[in-house]
Amino acid sequence: MISEKTCFGIIGLGLLGGSYAIALSRKGYRVNGVDVDEAACQKAIENGWCEKAGSDPSILGECDLVISALYPRTFIQWIRENQDVLKPGCLLSDVTGVKRYVISELSRILRSDVEFIACHPMAGREYKGLDYADPDRFRNANYIVVPTENNTEEAVQTGKQLGEILGFRNIVELDAKKHDEMIGYLSQLTHVIAVSLMNANDRTDLAEYTGDSFRDLTRIAFINEDLWPSLFAMNSDLLLSEMDAFIEEMQSFRSLLAAGDEEGMKQKLRLSSERQQLFRKKK
Amino acid sequence: MISEKTCFGIIGLGLLGGSYAIALSRKGYRVNGVDVDEAACQKAIENGWCEKAGSDPSILGECDLVISALYPRTFIQWIRENQDVLKPGCLLSDVTGVKRYVISELSRILRSDVEFIACHPMAGREYKGLDYADPDRFRNANYIVVPTENNTEEAVQTGKQLGEILGFRNIVELDAKKHDEMIGYLSQLTHVIAVSLMNANDRTDLAEYTGDSFRDLTRIAFINEDLWPSLFAMNSDLLLSEMDAFIEEMQSFRSLLAAGDEEGMKQKLRLSSERQQLFRKKK
Repeated sequence: MISEKTCFGIIGLGLLGGSYAIALSRKGYRVNGVDVDEAACQKAIENGWCEKAGSDPSILGECDLVISALYPRTFIQWIRENQDVLKPGCLLSDVTGVKRYVISELSRILRSDVEFIACHPMAGREYKGLDYADPDRFRNANYIVVPTENNTEEAVQTGKQLGEILGFRNIVELDAKKHDEMIGYLSQLTHVIAVSLMNANDRTDLAEYTGDSFRDLTRIAFINEDLWPSLFAMNSDLLLSEMDAFIEEMQSFRSLLAAGDEEGMKQKLRLSSERQQLFRKKK
Repeated sequence: MISEKTCFGIIGLGLLGGSYAIALSRKGYRVNGVDVDEAACQKAIENGWCEKAGSDPSILGECDLVISALYPRTFIQWIRENQDVLKPGCLLSDVTGVKRYVISELSRILRSDVEFIACHPMAGREYKGLDYADPDRFRNANYIVVPTENNTEEAVQTGKQLGEILGFRNIVELDAKKHDEMIGYLSQLTHVIAVSLMNANDRTDLAEYTGDSFRDLTRIAFINEDLWPSLFAMNSDLLLSEMDAFIEEMQSFRSLLAAGDEEGMKQKLRLSSERQQLFRKKK
């Protein structure tokens, strides 16, 4: 478990890694950070977010809990090349938005004396880089611990403890398949819809008439183009079936509209209104 | 044009009609209101929003500017049955969300001594009824005047003047076809998408994981089921083609995902991000 003596290591001082360093250092923990960007490392040291920060992975050698805040493929590549620096018996965690891919890759390559506990802080946003790091965003967000049958109970509890220390509102446990299903529907499908709505029609001339509904639906069409395609690809089986279900539902609405079946459309609106209330109540 | 002596008539004291009565009475104008709901009429009188209010259409006989805040088919039916009560030379306006239908219907049935100027206050919301009336919502909303070639210049200017008196942020003029195209893309398509996203998947068990993106995309899935099916049907040609363009764009994204084409997805994300910024700047 995490104690006041725990030394944290963070790989990647970007939006999320930087937010972790800020949150942990504020609470008095020792944090070392690794990043290829020298300016980010210097900023982290100057602000007291990291005790040591630099491009040399060996500064993680003293860390008890190492968190990767890299993009998923970069994370796997980093482990391949640098896992020798990790302290025997240390715990490794991450922030990746899809889980089956990283769990499966690490199960094949990770040293046997290092345990990996997958975690997903649901607090990403459209901007990237340390300049946008802000742990206050964690207060309204979910933190999901994604254990496998190979995890020790201590690692699972430490993952949850980390979420609490970081200040997340809600900390839950999900298995990798359920996590990726949930992300496929609630997050990835919604982003694909927003992108497609924005791309379907070149009507930026209409911007002055834009109301809340269009703005709400397209806010997330501004999206990190370097990260999301890989997340979509790593979850493509589940995302494809969510997209198919959605497109089928659109086609079904289209048939009612083409037939002038107002009563049929009304039933669909009644169903969606009922469900929307359920999502509202539980939020 | 509207002067301090202008007497306003409002048909239907619901969400929008009530908001009009409140806004106009606050500015000192005389307002008469017609509604089949006695309680609504009484409330409007007690609060000073209407000088006269009741179910008898003849109280509109003294009004210079009569605004229908009824649902579109009810509006046309009301004119058929009650237009005899209108004062010769009075101006008639409305709040309907699609315009080609009402303009075309009224051109066939309206008395020749009454002029109709179509107006669309883009300030509807998901709730209905006088209890939700609130003209403060107009401050952030667009007001669209939709003239035809048969309108007098004075009627067009009076329509705009009404939007200003009501306190709308932005008052613009569009012809009926362009108005209905804009509504088809920015409003109707977005509502069909939200409804379909909500209906595609019975996963209210996921409500506790819901983040901002899903909530933003489904907020408008709670929708007035009595009004919208008729608005969709009255704009079905344009809405169908917007839906087809959107579904085609989703299918195109689906093909890239199925092929694992991350570079292709990245290009789509780059386009949507660029467009989203344009919509943001102009808002």
